[in-house]
Amino acid sequence: MRILGIDPGYGRLGFGLIDRVGMDLVSIEFGTLTTDANDRMEVRLAQIYDKVKELVDRFAPNCIASERQIFSSNKTTGLDVSKALGVVMLACAHCDLPWIDYTPAEVKQAVTGNGSADKKQVQFMVARLLSLQGSVLGDDASDALAIAICHAQRERIGSLG
Amino acid sequence: MRILGIDPGYGRLGFGLIDRVGMDLVSIEFGTLTTDANDRMEVRLAQIYDKVKELVDRFAPNCIASERQIFSSNKTTGLDVSKALGVVMLACAHCDLPWIDYTPAEVKQAVTGNGSADKKQVQFMVARLLSLQGSVLGDDASDALAIAICHAQRERIGSLG
Repeated sequence: MRILGIDPGYGRLGFGLIDRVGMDLVSIEFGTLTTDANDRMEVRLAQIYDKVKELVDRFAPNCIASERQIFSSNKTTGLDVSKALGVVMLACAHCDLPWIDYTPAEVKQAVTGNGSADKKQVQFMVARLLSLQGSVLGDDASDALAIAICHAQRERIGSLG
Repeated sequence: MRILGIDPGYGRLGFGLIDRVGMDLVSIEFGTLTTDANDRMEVRLAQIYDKVKELVDRFAPNCIASERQIFSSNKTTGLDVSKALGVVMLACAHCDLPWIDYTPAEVKQAVTGNGSADKKQVQFMVARLLSLQGSVLGDDASDALAIAICHAQRERIGSLG
């Protein structure tokens, strides 16, 4: 099973593709799409949509997993992240892929065993679980890979149950 | 100039097309797209995207105008409306149309002369300005037409200035 994890954002969107082969998790691709704050929002949304479609075309994941948006203290930012998330969900529908989302606490719990782990712990465990210790992950790609790992673990537990 | 006004929402999305011919405003089409609460959000977002594209294909507007989202007291609803708005903005980008948005107060001011007018006043003035007194408008279509009227007036003032 191949999973595309997305950490949604309009300025920075993290993505991470992993394969689950039996008990093993293998990193396929990860990175961050950045959009230009000087561009109009609709242009930035189109870039996000194109990036998700391109990743699906190139890597043929079986599903897209994302982080469920929890209400942000910064209201305007929260609404704009939601626009980006809507566009990612649309790309998912246009690619006929299942969409799954997890709360930030579920993702942290799955990756570190602690639902309130900090970014550093998440990054450390993502690198360890995917044997990426030598790589520069960055927060957004690390979060996207963490989401994909969370889904891989849920699916494995589901398939055993 | 032909304007497509959109009142964004994920359960109900209002739309209204008007022509501005000199000083006159003419209603071309209006209505409400409703999506099924039993469908998954990504399916509903795809229906919204398709509807906007269909309206653009059928009526060839020169631009799309929408209401700028002001932070909602209902946080979850606000985030989901924002997803719908993101998808409408993407459709606008994919159709190569200019995107313009106005605050609710700007729309009310333009249509009724009062930035804090209630829905009934807005509906009354929309029907009057577009000679639709006999028609059943509904809140969503009325709001969408009001947004289109607001943009028509701004453009006219701009062209005179």
